[in-house]
Amino acid sequence: MNEALSILLNKGTSKSYSKKEFIIRQGETSNKIYFVKHGVTRHYVLTRDGQEKTIRISLEQDFFYSSIVSYFKNEASYIYCQCLTDCDLIYWESSLIEELFKEYPDLETFKNQQLINFILEKHTREIALITQNAEGRYQQFCKTRLDLFNRIPHHIIASYLDITPETLSRLRSKKS
Amino acid sequence: MNEALSILLNKGTSKSYSKKEFIIRQGETSNKIYFVKHGVTRHYVLTRDGQEKTIRISLEQDFFYSSIVSYFKNEASYIYCQCLTDCDLIYWESSLIEELFKEYPDLETFKNQQLINFILEKHTREIALITQNAEGRYQQFCKTRLDLFNRIPHHIIASYLDITPETLSRLRSKKS
Repeated sequence: MNEALSILLNKGTSKSYSKKEFIIRQGETSNKIYFVKHGVTRHYVLTRDGQEKTIRISLEQDFFYSSIVSYFKNEASYIYCQCLTDCDLIYWESSLIEELFKEYPDLETFKNQQLINFILEKHTREIALITQNAEGRYQQFCKTRLDLFNRIPHHIIASYLDITPETLSRLRSKKS
Repeated sequence: MNEALSILLNKGTSKSYSKKEFIIRQGETSNKIYFVKHGVTRHYVLTRDGQEKTIRISLEQDFFYSSIVSYFKNEASYIYCQCLTDCDLIYWESSLIEELFKEYPDLETFKNQQLINFILEKHTREIALITQNAEGRYQQFCKTRLDLFNRIPHHIIASYLDITPETLSRLRSKKS
């Protein structure tokens, strides 16, 4: 484990969550960053017709803001963040994070790399949604996250891949 | 102008581009960051049926990677980056950027803020595409970028807003 990560983890607060428990709901304001020790979480928004649209799935070793736009703009969140399994998380309040950055300047580089990783993940998904068909997106997902099919409801993976649960089921039976 | 930006701009290379000229094409590898002194550029990808889908529009004072995934993963770009007007840009090669970060540690904080701005822009657009209808997205665009209608082809704005050119035309005539 690198030094920056080790310092961060030691300064954070551990908290356990139950499956389906919310980390943030739409309308609340985000002021925390989280690290996943154990479990799976998702970020989702409500579509215009009230459907839940999953836009991010985080698992062990991932960092996430409960709502990144809310965190940086200090405004109410559009996003929900929810545990998909029982979870053990570590969190830091924004005021503590700012103190840690002043105390340990090396953390700036670490944060920078985390932001870049987040951008690459978002960008790769955005491009996949435009350039790949359902099967291509499903196959790409299976390459890195196949084990999630045993951990979380499949309709949430379907939403994340922007396909219907029926199409996902068809693709899975085709493969096996 | 803050000091970090001033240092950066002085160390970059100026280059003029003509309208429609490409900064990067699909298949090429990105190793440069750009700043827009004057003009408008866009990033786009090709959809599965060969249509151009605009995913980002940059203008004066914006920084952009010619292709951010290509830049950080050192792989061929999926993205095209093209000038929509005659442009005066400043660019930095990745090797120079790394040297500057070593020489001026304060730039790390500046870069960090740029990455956060980029994430907020991408995230806000992603959520708008899910939660707002065509009119909502059009009105949001008009709030900050109304002048672009006088500078770039409207079908490109329509593509960016994920609506048809006909819908955009209807929304514009409705407003006036």
